Amino acid sequence: MVPENVITELVQRTPSKIVLIVMDGLGGLPHNGRSELAAADCPCLDKLAAASELGQTDPISRGITPGSGPSHLALFGYDPLKYEIGRGVLEALGVGLDMTARDVAARGNFATLKDGRITDRRAGRIPTEKNKELCALLSKEIPRIGEVEIVLEPGKEHRFTVLFRGDGLDGRLSDADPQIAPAEPVPAKADVAEAKATADIVNKYIAEATRVLSDRRPANAILLRGFAKYPDIPSMTDLFKLQPAAIAVYPMYRGLAKLVGMKVLDAGETIEDEFNTLAREWEKHDFFYLHVKKTDSYGEDGNFDQKVKVIEEFDRSLPTLLALEPDVICVTCDHSTPAVLKAHSWHACPFLLWSKYCRPSGVRQFVEHECAAGSLGRFPAVEAMTLMLGNALKLAKYGA
Amino acid sequence: MVPENVITELVQRTPSKIVLIVMDGLGGLPHNGRSELAAADCPCLDKLAAASELGQTDPISRGITPGSGPSHLALFGYDPLKYEIGRGVLEALGVGLDMTARDVAARGNFATLKDGRITDRRAGRIPTEKNKELCALLSKEIPRIGEVEIVLEPGKEHRFTVLFRGDGLDGRLSDADPQIAPAEPVPAKADVAEAKATADIVNKYIAEATRVLSDRRPANAILLRGFAKYPDIPSMTDLFKLQPAAIAVYPMYRGLAKLVGMKVLDAGETIEDEFNTLAREWEKHDFFYLHVKKTDSYGEDGNFDQKVKVIEEFDRSLPTLLALEPDVICVTCDHSTPAVLKAHSWHACPFLLWSKYCRPSGVRQFVEHECAAGSLGRFPAVEAMTLMLGNALKLAKYGA
Repeated sequence: MVPENVITELVQRTPSKIVLIVMDGLGGLPHNGRSELAAADCPCLDKLAAASELGQTDPISRGITPGSGPSHLALFGYDPLKYEIGRGVLEALGVGLDMTARDVAARGNFATLKDGRITDRRAGRIPTEKNKELCALLSKEIPRIGEVEIVLEPGKEHRFTVLFRGDGLDGRLSDADPQIAPAEPVPAKADVAEAKATADIVNKYIAEATRVLSDRRPANAILLRGFAKYPDIPSMTDLFKLQPAAIAVYPMYRGLAKLVGMKVLDAGETIEDEFNTLAREWEKHDFFYLHVKKTDSYGEDGNFDQKVKVIEEFDRSLPTLLALEPDVICVTCDHSTPAVLKAHSWHACPFLLWSKYCRPSGVRQFVEHECAAGSLGRFPAVEAMTLMLGNALKLAKYGA
Repeated sequence: MVPENVITELVQRTPSKIVLIVMDGLGGLPHNGRSELAAADCPCLDKLAAASELGQTDPISRGITPGSGPSHLALFGYDPLKYEIGRGVLEALGVGLDMTARDVAARGNFATLKDGRITDRRAGRIPTEKNKELCALLSKEIPRIGEVEIVLEPGKEHRFTVLFRGDGLDGRLSDADPQIAPAEPVPAKADVAEAKATADIVNKYIAEATRVLSDRRPANAILLRGFAKYPDIPSMTDLFKLQPAAIAVYPMYRGLAKLVGMKVLDAGETIEDEFNTLAREWEKHDFFYLHVKKTDSYGEDGNFDQKVKVIEEFDRSLPTLLALEPDVICVTCDHSTPAVLKAHSWHACPFLLWSKYCRPSGVRQFVEHECAAGSLGRFPAVEAMTLMLGNALKLAKYGA
């Protein structure tokens, strides 16, 4: 893998346009002898594949199942082992919280405290409506601890997300959660000296919240875990001299895109909406990340047939993209989510790259086994970015 | 390559079982147009290959011919460039010496000393029987130097292995062997300050041995080389949370397995014995390393036909393994030993991985060129471990 700074030195701004389509969880496994891609009827995608170079990517490394954070960072050209997105941050992005570089995020539970011990880590799974009420109460009663602003976002049942927003905060804290019950509450502890002040603020907030909730039952305490600072990641503009934009319906992917400096566009609701957004904003950017979520959702549900249908729905919208005449088109996934596994998996991701200057594969179908035999070979997903930039004629020669 | 500590964090103990079969030196080269694997009639292995993912590994790196130590370490999931097994240690493991963490091992020669010069580094290749007699004499006369115990193991002709066993020993010593003859004897010298005391003990032992042997002819001196301390390698249980066991007939491979914390089982003599051992011990472990030696032995002899026969013998025993219904089966080699080369070689190793969740290759034969076209691509052997762990559903997701 070429170090980022070397790539940055080679990148040239040009008018050429790249479209990276991430069909979340696209890679599959056979069910009745055919994978989801093999079963899908996709005349447009297959025709594109015939004119494209194919390959397979490993998001992290062979055998490793990636979460959405690292797998997306890799496709955006960032070494996923170097840049870390903490649990709390991913959670906050997922619920659509608009994070700033000053924020430390954490995942929260409402819990039950009795005689000084946590007796139920989920407060009997209180109704979501009750959760909203309690978050509103806490927000009103404890808007800040000293100079640090507290932002709460209720989730489902007992879950919520919290942001601590202030100068000099540090996310390197242990969980303020005993993980089992019954157990004594545990305070957040600083993993490094620099996080000591943040630990004090967090523990003060927990104490205040316990006071505010003291006459409530069963939710009279809070547990916080997965503390993480908003990561300091160089933007795609800094690294790759791109003016990137993101078209994604789900908050987490919009948040991930923002994290690397993409402009987040109004994507609409459907795949067709997303392609229409692409067409509408076409002149304003030179790199578009278009995210299709439901291939993953149905994969996670184990719903093979619906995953196939989403791929076919995508295929019907593809002509909108082709009509724009991009210089580079990449169709791949962040990770595989085979319906038969009902989960993200370690399997290699199918990868298609089309440009005027690619070596056409001539295959009849965009499918895992053709990608496995493809001329791009099997490579780390982080190298997709140089492939796209190269094919867009945006990279100068390395060395004389 | 993912750092070990990251893998350790992802590993979960589960009841799933992995079998890693190392057919030593399996990879070959064409002789009359067909490699050893291509020439072998292996219906069972071929059927397994059709249902498996295939690929090729490089034990160290393209073009590098590996020794058995590093190539096995790689397959066990250890970076072979990071963990070193010194010559003396490998020799000691090879002759079945039961080493401890306190030991420094070295390879020895009986030699001829005349007028203060080494005139024959092999003492005229004395008969093995004479070697045994001299080792017994030295063991009786010089059982220890100070607090350091001396363990001798005669080899063939003039060769022997020696262990220095004591606290605080250090193997970073230069050879006490002029390498050519005639030449002055040379003492062991410490490469680092910490090895100074060990050098003194070694040189004192050489002086004592020369005194004891002084009236013998032609073997009246000893040369020692390849000093190495038993390496401090984290166990597979520490790194991968496995309860591993080794089934290997030859001492070196049993020793290598012990080095990484495997339980060494009683393997018997034949391939069939080894598979029977596997069946007998099946319930007690979750990772089995089964080593087949003779593919390499016949490769080194240049005996193409016998190497083919060993592969076929393996194929006949394979049903015993399949009947156990492992979760993951991996069949590969530590390095290639083409019969036409009569030596270990740098050629990629054929690699087969079967699990319930692999993407079947559908090939008709387990053979080098099908592996070269396989969906796993060509990868460093050290990544085999994460592939096996991933397919056994023993790895948690990386990142959220």
